[in-house]
Amino acid sequence: MRAVEHIGIAVRSIEERLPLYRALGFEVGGREEVGSEKVRVAFLLAAGTRIELLEPTAPDSPIRSFLTKRGEGMHHICFQVDDIRATMTELRTKGFRLLSDEPRSGANGSQVCFIHPSSGGGVLIELSQPGE
Amino acid sequence: MRAVEHIGIAVRSIEERLPLYRALGFEVGGREEVGSEKVRVAFLLAAGTRIELLEPTAPDSPIRSFLTKRGEGMHHICFQVDDIRATMTELRTKGFRLLSDEPRSGANGSQVCFIHPSSGGGVLIELSQPGE
Repeated sequence: MRAVEHIGIAVRSIEERLPLYRALGFEVGGREEVGSEKVRVAFLLAAGTRIELLEPTAPDSPIRSFLTKRGEGMHHICFQVDDIRATMTELRTKGFRLLSDEPRSGANGSQVCFIHPSSGGGVLIELSQPGE
Repeated sequence: MRAVEHIGIAVRSIEERLPLYRALGFEVGGREEVGSEKVRVAFLLAAGTRIELLEPTAPDSPIRSFLTKRGEGMHHICFQVDDIRATMTELRTKGFRLLSDEPRSGANGSQVCFIHPSSGGGVLIELSQPGE
């Protein structure tokens, strides 16, 4: 069965949002700075899936643009796939628009790609094939 | 560990969006019409959590207002809780704003409440205590 790998939530400040998620019983599982995306992330552990809080670290971070346009809130859903190249080919054949022609490197050796929100019913969908 | 019960996505038409989720390997687990909320919903089965597509069934449906204001996209996240009244009391004590004073009846005998997006970092968070 297809797994929801994580749900990404754009925040102005991770520290500012942690009291909410702690009050709801979540624990922080890990923090990371992703230089290429100019974001700092914190993963909240939940049964079955994870929540990724994304905070911009530079004025030209994609998450900064999102916050300016839409404010804080849900940013993307990530689904785990077994074979990202096969999935990308299948989606393109069916007419879905992707944000890149090739998979890109994600965290922990994963390979990722995004479906354009115009093909995703307004949802930014990330696909992730886990690293070896 | 806290479970993500489901992720709610507002759509203009469930039928129009199913090809995308089918291409991604999801199966439709159940459909329901929720008269009180004036929506038709379809649950997509995923490992660990579920995706709920919400389609308005009347012009005054809350989902219709959401679509008019923001377009299709992610609408809410639902977390499962053991004791909804205790959680509501704790959140209120900590200064979080809720959408109702009392839990409301949800699907399958569940009791639900929502955290106001202004207290949820722009995210509409549903809390759900499963039915007996």
